[in-house]
Amino acid sequence: MAIPRSLPQGAAIIGQSGGPTAVINQSLVGVIEGLKGFAPVKKIYGMRHGVDGLIRHLPLVDLTAITSEQMERIARTPSAALGSSRAKPTEADGPRIFDALKAADVRYFFYIGGNDSSDTCRIIYELSQRTGYEVHCIHVPKTVDNDLMMNDHTPGFGSAARFVAMAFMADDKDNASLPGIKINVVMGRNAGFLTAASVLARSGEHDGPHLIYLPEVPFDIDRFVADVKEAVAKHGRCQIAVSEGIKDKEGVEIGAKLISGDKDAHGNAQLSGSGALGDMLSNLLKDRIKSPSGKPPRVRADTLGYLQRCWPEPSPVDAAEARAVGVKAAQEAMTGLTDGSIAIARISNHPYRIEKRVVRLSDVAAKTKVMPPEFINGHNNVTKAFIDYCRPLVGDLPNMYRLPL
Amino acid sequence: MAIPRSLPQGAAIIGQSGGPTAVINQSLVGVIEGLKGFAPVKKIYGMRHGVDGLIRHLPLVDLTAITSEQMERIARTPSAALGSSRAKPTEADGPRIFDALKAADVRYFFYIGGNDSSDTCRIIYELSQRTGYEVHCIHVPKTVDNDLMMNDHTPGFGSAARFVAMAFMADDKDNASLPGIKINVVMGRNAGFLTAASVLARSGEHDGPHLIYLPEVPFDIDRFVADVKEAVAKHGRCQIAVSEGIKDKEGVEIGAKLISGDKDAHGNAQLSGSGALGDMLSNLLKDRIKSPSGKPPRVRADTLGYLQRCWPEPSPVDAAEARAVGVKAAQEAMTGLTDGSIAIARISNHPYRIEKRVVRLSDVAAKTKVMPPEFINGHNNVTKAFIDYCRPLVGDLPNMYRLPL
Repeated sequence: MAIPRSLPQGAAIIGQSGGPTAVINQSLVGVIEGLKGFAPVKKIYGMRHGVDGLIRHLPLVDLTAITSEQMERIARTPSAALGSSRAKPTEADGPRIFDALKAADVRYFFYIGGNDSSDTCRIIYELSQRTGYEVHCIHVPKTVDNDLMMNDHTPGFGSAARFVAMAFMADDKDNASLPGIKINVVMGRNAGFLTAASVLARSGEHDGPHLIYLPEVPFDIDRFVADVKEAVAKHGRCQIAVSEGIKDKEGVEIGAKLISGDKDAHGNAQLSGSGALGDMLSNLLKDRIKSPSGKPPRVRADTLGYLQRCWPEPSPVDAAEARAVGVKAAQEAMTGLTDGSIAIARISNHPYRIEKRVVRLSDVAAKTKVMPPEFINGHNNVTKAFIDYCRPLVGDLPNMYRLPL
Repeated sequence: MAIPRSLPQGAAIIGQSGGPTAVINQSLVGVIEGLKGFAPVKKIYGMRHGVDGLIRHLPLVDLTAITSEQMERIARTPSAALGSSRAKPTEADGPRIFDALKAADVRYFFYIGGNDSSDTCRIIYELSQRTGYEVHCIHVPKTVDNDLMMNDHTPGFGSAARFVAMAFMADDKDNASLPGIKINVVMGRNAGFLTAASVLARSGEHDGPHLIYLPEVPFDIDRFVADVKEAVAKHGRCQIAVSEGIKDKEGVEIGAKLISGDKDAHGNAQLSGSGALGDMLSNLLKDRIKSPSGKPPRVRADTLGYLQRCWPEPSPVDAAEARAVGVKAAQEAMTGLTDGSIAIARISNHPYRIEKRVVRLSDVAAKTKVMPPEFINGHNNVTKAFIDYCRPLVGDLPNMYRLPL
């Protein structure tokens, strides 16, 4: 993070990577806004489908003359407007990416994504240092999983958490009106933050979710069945939040065993885009729990699916923060930052205040964050500390009413 | 629909039945509002879980003194605040229901639901006539399936259609940013209106949904695979809307064959609350379509699930209409209507205007409506006539932007 004497002149380029979010375009627009009017930036380009587009020689998108009105419309549109990429570039891809950057006279490289995107920035910055062709590389954080190190929370998470909380709140009223057992499977392979956010749906004593299963806590089928029986006895019904990433005590993903799917560039099996885990758990409960009449209980499973990351009514707090980290990335680059990642730190919770900081690329790239022990309450719940942490991120939630039935 | 000389004095009772909607409580509150201040109505009760609660002697909910503030909060809450019921009462249940009504001095019976609820009103009104204990029975329409006869459209549909349109719109941007094949399974056993509403997500030529499969059109697997291949060739990806109720050419539900589920009181097998249909179609495409590299394509399936009927941000038009049919039902009862159903007729489309009419209970109870031929375009699309019909019902939709990629 050395400060160079003078800023190189040339083009800036922005890319989006990984699973899109409802506010990733806010960050894109934030970077553009932050760059506008700075003399060293002669052109602003967008990568099509991230560095994958550079490797495949896809034409760049020229964003230099974009209007404020176009920017606002893009900012409000969910998912990656430039296209995203699942590819994690190898060290061998580095030179091909670098050649594409040089060909377009790029001196400022902004990459919006998760920890892999931070690592991509690191690879390119190292090539820049090795070859002497100066490219400043700034990572802009994004992920609905909320699993980036060095960040209190990550842009994209608040909007996904808002969708999950509203989904559980509404679905709980549906379940109360026609009582039964309802399983909702939530995104998040290793980090349970999004599944945990379902807790914000609770206000009264009998409100769901009644049980919350995180990937951080080994999932035991017998204990699960016993939990559900107990909740049904207590509430006359049971709404359950299950992470798609729940693992058995050997650490094997239960969902991955069920889905005949492809693997991504990281060797991870498909978990999203299938109802298999919910259906398996649903059939298990139908089989193992009998109602007093001996009939299997009414069990339904929904997998909340891709809407979690693209629902077009984001958390206002999240949308504003996603924009702000983009602006900050551009401003830092324009005041001499050569390489780094923008991170969010929480300064206070009452009132809620954050600060945007510059951190090392390698500190973000290194590993992923999971739910800390102080957020986990036993094997099927979360703590008040988690609720206090999560609530400011999702915006105002509906104030629902239920007659005492 | 005879007009009696004078109105009987006594209690009014309101019940909610069938699958809840996002605006069924608007109708509940509408009936209460419409009854307030009328001298013949001494008490206003709510049935808990519809007539099922009367049969099971569940205590009534006294709504007589409910405040405006409570009413507004209930109206904004999705799903049946009084609890709903899946039971369709038999002729033999009639006397038990009737006894419960007499015990509470009920003279006005309002039932919010689909065509079965209209039939329940008919059964009770016939008992009233046979026994000489006067009970006026008014049906208030509700269903996300939009399948009630005599109605241009049904309260509940517009909000579900809005959710479906917004879901496809956002998910289409997700699919465009990481191109692949995406299946979204939509509610609706026999009527394809809700699946068809996905079309409102389209604005540009390459926007999804690229294929729409309705329960009204026999589903052929080979033709489906060919359709998807063609769409992928044209758009580089494919977003697909599939009704949960698609049937093969023998009329057998494809989803029901896959789900090891319970049957409801009508003998219908479970279709919702499972991802099996989407997963089967997804696996079929992975198996039958190869990418140029010989790899199976990226195929994902989401089942939109119960959020379609309870998402807490309803169509404003639908919310207002649901309220208005409740008010109308009460007003008709207070001006002498003994039995009937409130129906929505469309007076004009530009500007959009409706009229609320009284129709016979038996005309609504008789059968369900499906998509008429003029709304169906070939075997995988809908017509402009359907778009013109549906658009005014869902409220304003987001104006999304996609860079030309």
